This record gives sequence, C-alpha cells and structure tokens, in this order.
Amino acid sequence: MLDILIKNAAIITMDDSRPVINGGCLGILDGKIGFVCSEHDMPRGGEARRIIDARGNIVMPGLINAHAHTAMCVMRGFADDMRLDKWLFEHIFPVEARLSEQAVCAGVRLGIAEMLASGTTSFSDMYFFEPKAAQIVLETGIRANLCNGVIALDESYEFERDRAITEIKELIANWHNAGNGRIKADASIHGEYTSSPWVWRKLHALAAEHGLVTQLHLSETKKEVDECRIRRGGRTPARAFFDEGIFDTPVLAAHGVWLTDEDMDLLAEKRVSIAHCPVSNLKLASGIAKVRQLLERGVNVCLGTDGCASNNSHDLFEEVKLAALLAKGSTLDPTAVPAYQALRMATVNGARAQGRENEIGMLKSGFDADLIMLDAQKANMRPLYDPVSTAVYSARGSEVRLTMVQGRVLYENGEFTTIDIEKTLRDADELAAPIVQGK
Amino acid sequence: MLDILIKNAAIITMDDSRPVINGGCLGILDGKIGFVCSEHDMPRGGEARRIIDARGNIVMPGLINAHAHTAMCVMRGFADDMRLDKWLFEHIFPVEARLSEQAVCAGVRLGIAEMLASGTTSFSDMYFFEPKAAQIVLETGIRANLCNGVIALDESYEFERDRAITEIKELIANWHNAGNGRIKADASIHGEYTSSPWVWRKLHALAAEHGLVTQLHLSETKKEVDECRIRRGGRTPARAFFDEGIFDTPVLAAHGVWLTDEDMDLLAEKRVSIAHCPVSNLKLASGIAKVRQLLERGVNVCLGTDGCASNNSHDLFEEVKLAALLAKGSTLDPTAVPAYQALRMATVNGARAQGRENEIGMLKSGFDADLIMLDAQKANMRPLYDPVSTAVYSARGSEVRLTMVQGRVLYENGEFTTIDIEKTLRDADELAAPIVQGK
Repeated sequence: MLDILIKNAAIITMDDSRPVINGGCLGILDGKIGFVCSEHDMPRGGEARRIIDARGNIVMPGLINAHAHTAMCVMRGFADDMRLDKWLFEHIFPVEARLSEQAVCAGVRLGIAEMLASGTTSFSDMYFFEPKAAQIVLETGIRANLCNGVIALDESYEFERDRAITEIKELIANWHNAGNGRIKADASIHGEYTSSPWVWRKLHALAAEHGLVTQLHLSETKKEVDECRIRRGGRTPARAFFDEGIFDTPVLAAHGVWLTDEDMDLLAEKRVSIAHCPVSNLKLASGIAKVRQLLERGVNVCLGTDGCASNNSHDLFEEVKLAALLAKGSTLDPTAVPAYQALRMATVNGARAQGRENEIGMLKSGFDADLIMLDAQKANMRPLYDPVSTAVYSARGSEVRLTMVQGRVLYENGEFTTIDIEKTLRDADELAAPIVQGK
Repeated sequence: MLDILIKNAAIITMDDSRPVINGGCLGILDGKIGFVCSEHDMPRGGEARRIIDARGNIVMPGLINAHAHTAMCVMRGFADDMRLDKWLFEHIFPVEARLSEQAVCAGVRLGIAEMLASGTTSFSDMYFFEPKAAQIVLETGIRANLCNGVIALDESYEFERDRAITEIKELIANWHNAGNGRIKADASIHGEYTSSPWVWRKLHALAAEHGLVTQLHLSETKKEVDECRIRRGGRTPARAFFDEGIFDTPVLAAHGVWLTDEDMDLLAEKRVSIAHCPVSNLKLASGIAKVRQLLERGVNVCLGTDGCASNNSHDLFEEVKLAALLAKGSTLDPTAVPAYQALRMATVNGARAQGRENEIGMLKSGFDADLIMLDAQKANMRPLYDPVSTAVYSARGSEVRLTMVQGRVLYENGEFTTIDIEKTLRDADELAAPIVQGK
C-alpha cells in the first residue's frame, strides 16, 4: 500500500521527456516517488493510506534555494536603501558581531518556516553556528546544504578562520548525510576578497577528501572584480580560483554579476554552478547577471534569495519570475529565458548545484518525494492554460497549499506540522530583534 | 456613532506630515475617514458599529493601478515568451477580434476579484465594452477610471473610431461620477502610432469640455519612437502630442520607457503623469523606464500592471517592489527610489494621475475610506521594524486580509462580499477561455 496517492493533478514533472501531465497522479512510498503518470496509466493496487485530490491544482517539485543566509531574516527591513558600504559596515556587520547563537537559531527557524510556506524544500546556506542550524533542519524536516563561510584575510583573522574551519569539520563529522541524507555539509570559501589562497587550498582539500560541494561568493560587485585584478596581477576572482584548482571539485558560486567572457568559459569547463540572486543584485545595486550568456555556454544556473536583509523575502517564486523577466528586459529579447527554463533553474539546476541531481528537482520514479501543491482555485491563477506559465508568471509563494519533503507533509493549508509558528514568531521578536536593534 | 473603528494598527498614512503611526486608530463614518491618530489621541465618543482590532497588522491606503486592460486577464498565460510582433499580431489581436462582450465581462470581473484580493482599490482601465465594465465596477464596489482607447489610423478605421468615440460619449453621459464618484469616464487616445492628430484633437476637445483625464500609451518601445520620428518630422510621440495641445488637459501616459530628456521636461512642464509598468516592460522586453530621472524632474510617476497577458498578474505589490529594485539595479545606486517613494507611486501619485488627489491615496481626515489591512502575523512579514519597508519589500498582495472602498468592506479573510467568486472563475473558464483558445 502506498503512503500517499495524489490524484487529478496538473503535474509539472520537470522531466524533459514529459514535462507536464494534465490529469496526472503520483504515488509515494517510503519517502520516494513510486510513479508519476496519467490517471488512466495508474498502476494497479493504487490503494494508499492517504489520497490527496488535487483537482484544479498544480503539483510540482519543491523549489531549491541555492544561496541563502537564512538567519539574516531577523534583519528583514532593518536597513534598506543604503549605499553598500554603509549598509554592510554600519548596519549588517555590527549586528552580526553581536548576534547570539540563540538569535541565529531564531532566525533559522523563522526563515525555514517562510521557505516551507512558500514552496522551498531545499536550501543552501552559508552562515555562522551551522551545527545549530543543522539541528533545526533535522527537526523541521526540510533539506539543506550547510556551510560556514570562512573569512580569513590575514594572520589577524586566525581565530575566525580556525573557528570556521572547526565548525566545518564538526558539520562533516556530525551532520554530513544526517536526516536520511537531507543534510549535507558543504565546504565554503566566503569570497576571494575575504580570504587568502592558503585558506582556499585548505578548504579545497577538505572538499576533495569528503566529496563536498564548495560554496562561495563570486564577482558580485564591480568593485570586487576591480580590486581583485589589482591584488592578483590582473586576474579576476574566477581566474584566481581556477588557477588554485578550487574549481576541480564541485563549486556553487553565488551571484556572478560581473563575470567576463573568459570567466564564463572557465565556469562552463569546470561545471561550476552559479546561484543567480536577481532580487538581491538589484536591491544592493550590484547589477544584472548575464544569465542568458551563462546558459548559452552551458553553465548550470540556479537561483537564490541571498540573505533576507537584501531582499527582503525568502519567496523563491519571486526569483523565478524575476529571472525570466530580467533576462528579457536586459537583452531586449522577449524570448530570452522562457518560463520552463526559469523553472529549471529553481529545480533541476538547483539540485545539481547541491550535488543532489539524482535525488530531487524532478518528479520522477525513484526520486525523493520533495514536492509542493499550488492552489489554482484563485482569481490570480485562472484561466489555467499552461501550468508552467502559471507557476512562473502568475503564482506567488502564497499559492502553496502543501509542502512535502521525503514524503512527509511539513506544511498544509497554512499549518506547519513540525514548527510551532507562534513561538517562532515570538522568538524572532524577543530573542533576535532586540539584538538587531542594539537594545 | 462611527461605522467602523480600526484600533491598534501600524498605520501607513502616506501623509508626509506623519507617514507612519504605530499603535494608531482610524475612524470611518459615511464612507469617509473621520480621524487617523495615535490610540491615546483618539477623540471621545469612539463608539462604532464595528471595531476591527488590527494588532500586529498594517493598515494603509488601497493601492491604485494606474494602467490596466483588466479584461485581458482571460488571456493570462495564453501566449508568453514571444517576439512582440508575433505575440501581438498572431495571438493577442486575433483573440481580441473574437472576444465577445460576455467574455470581456467575465475578464473584468475576474480581474477585479484579483485586484481586491491583492489590495488594489482603484484602477485606470483602457479596453472595449467599457460601459459594461462600468456596470461591473458599480456592482463590485471598486473604484475605476474607464476609457475605450481610440484606435483610428486612417479612413479604413472609421467604424472603429466611431464606435470608440460613441462608447466614450456613452461613458460620459451614463457613467461619469456614478457610484458616488467611484466611476470616472476618461478620454483616451490609444497611442501615437494607432491614431491621427485629427482623432487626438477630437478626444482632447471631449476631455476639455467634460474635465476628463486622457489616458494614452507613450514611448513604450524603441520602435514606436523611431517610427514616429520618421512619420512626424523627427519629433517624438511626446513632442507630437505636446505640439497638438493634447497635454493642455490632464494626461495619464502609460510606459514612457523611451522618453528623451526633452520629453521628460515637457511632461514635467505639462504635469503629465507616467504610469510605470515594470513587469510588463521587462516581459515584453520593451526596456526599463528611467524612473529616477522622471522623479527628479518632478514628473508624477505612478504604477500599473498593464494587461495581464504581459505580466501575468494584477498584484500591484509586485510592481511597487520591482519599481524600487529596478531603479537601483539600472542606476547601480542602492539609494535610488527608496521604499517610501515606491509606495507613493502606488498611492498618492496614482490618485493624482486619476484626478482623485483630494479623494484617495492617503489615510487622512476627510478622504474616502479606501484602505487595506495586511496580515503581519506571518513568517515572511517578521520582524516588523518598519511598516513601510515591510509593505514594499516583504509583502505580497496575498498578505491583504481586508480591502475597503468608501468604507465598504469588499474582501475580508479570503471572502468577497460583492463577488460570487466560484461563478466568476467558472465564467472565465466557460465563457472566455474557449474564445481565447479559438475553440
């Protein structure tokens, strides 16, 4: 007997062999997808402990947020509309210096609640206190690749560096592949401008030893690239990482706004993934990444919200739509990045960036049952000519009425099954907000 | 006795003398705002037929969608990701040629439902069958400026032109100021490229005689401007309209993506309003309007969704956020168009563009009670440091839990008070969708 059978759905599979099944059904057993097919092809013995009638609704893979600093949602709306240096040095960094473990945990839980309620089932995170974040990921049932972004400019950063590396080692030892594989430890170099090649090589060795993805920030701002060229004999950050062999293990690089043509070729050659963060790049006025050029070169482009302090939302549906729109507006070509390609970024490509391409990102027999159901019984979702268009251009995260990871329902009709939302909101207000405000 | 008293709210008034009142209250009598103040300044005799406890929520003016073709939502998701000429000539125009009055009415009602549910209380509309739209506006309780965009290129368009002008005259005679002032007839020239100066002058005379706003499309695409220059001795569309005196009565011009510096000066001088439509301009790859330059010159910039076929949503919160983001990203200046300025576009500026600046757009004693309440008890809305930031950067239209026009609640907690939503969805599917699909 199946655990769950979903019937009568408009299913977006993201499997190119059959991307959309209207009037489809999907069977779930032991956290995995048993079958996805048309109603009339349903295998015999379709009894199930729970049957979900999805008539008129859209079922699709859960979205994958490939670049987040989840705990930063406790700074949501605390500092907007400022120059980057003022924002960072006068607001964000001072707050981060005083953020307690408790405040970070409150932020992680709040951010996970927000993600589950808006259809994100897996995220890649870079922040502090990540072993604590791992505990919350375990409890809430979501999926995540976690890392502590190592910042270590010179000798004076020795303590920071050692703390971060210790934390990554702790993550690997205690959390890698925990929660039935839901949790992965990633290696991480925060960025070219915040660490030295000595640190890069150390992290790369860890990644190679344990088979980890390495998360890093890459060419987010023009200033970053200009200063790197001065520092590193004319080389760009991508070239510098490439030269040190950092791209010889899988890398998930965030932003990539100011990549050169040569950089893009290097990324394609080394199969580096780029986490495009359109909202954050606009809000901080970093610029607009050349997504179509990256895709044309075969670079794996996925999507991220970045930290909520520069967004100020974890709703990945917004990034999907904006990725499609910005590609068109910035190239003056309305055929650039069509709906299906934008949705691939948030599903199939995100899975590959997380090293989970055989696990999630598609609704396909044998894959984990990480999926969401969108309510299409609302004025803004009708008429429903094409589920992919509707999911990309009309849906907001608020259309999500069910979120499931490994077959376990974590959110349904506004209710969380693993999160005490009232306590979560209260903790954010009482444990984190006063620290953010310096009270 | 008051009709409604709202208590304990975080109130965004949009009144520059006191833009935000935390712990505020607001009294409504006979469709108008009696007072807006802090709880402890509440006037005596604060009894009310209904008291709304807004603790933890945000109360703000209803949003104003200054450029819509509302009925086009029946084409939502029907044709995406195409070159403009193919989209328009192979898909949109053929559908419009066969759209029945019944199908248009189904679209108008669907679009109004979508607007009310996402916090829009007033819209400016340009389409066909507008007297029928007026009837639906009357019934549903929303507010609107309605016009039929006159298309009349040459003699062969005589029938179209006459039909459109007849319809505008009918709107003026039967609907101008109807519904306690909620409905206004606007004059309309569809665009420079779809009509001749003879038509412009005729419409302008109507506008002057009846004191109407004139809606038109202006410099949406580069092609439009290039072709105008060839047609009209090097002049831009703005210059051509200016020369014919069209800007001597109030004009609400949509898009303004390709305005020259001289155009912008003309618009500022003549107090022409620009309805910025950021989603549509990106999706159709028209470009990015120079909003900061327009604002710096004192041009009244408001916001529109444009037709839903090029969006595909009527959620104006999306336009507010994107207006703020795009201004930053396109100027590489993160201080461009801060949150409050973006929100002004969708409220105060929209009211002015509709000729309603003493009526709506602010929460202020004596103004009509057109307001919305946002649910801030959700993970994506917390912590709540600054209601303006939260409304602009974190809220989606789905956070709206109450929508009121002239003191009448039209939408509350997912329920419509003047719309049979199931019939509306069904009508869109059964009366409009088959015509759109050519079935």
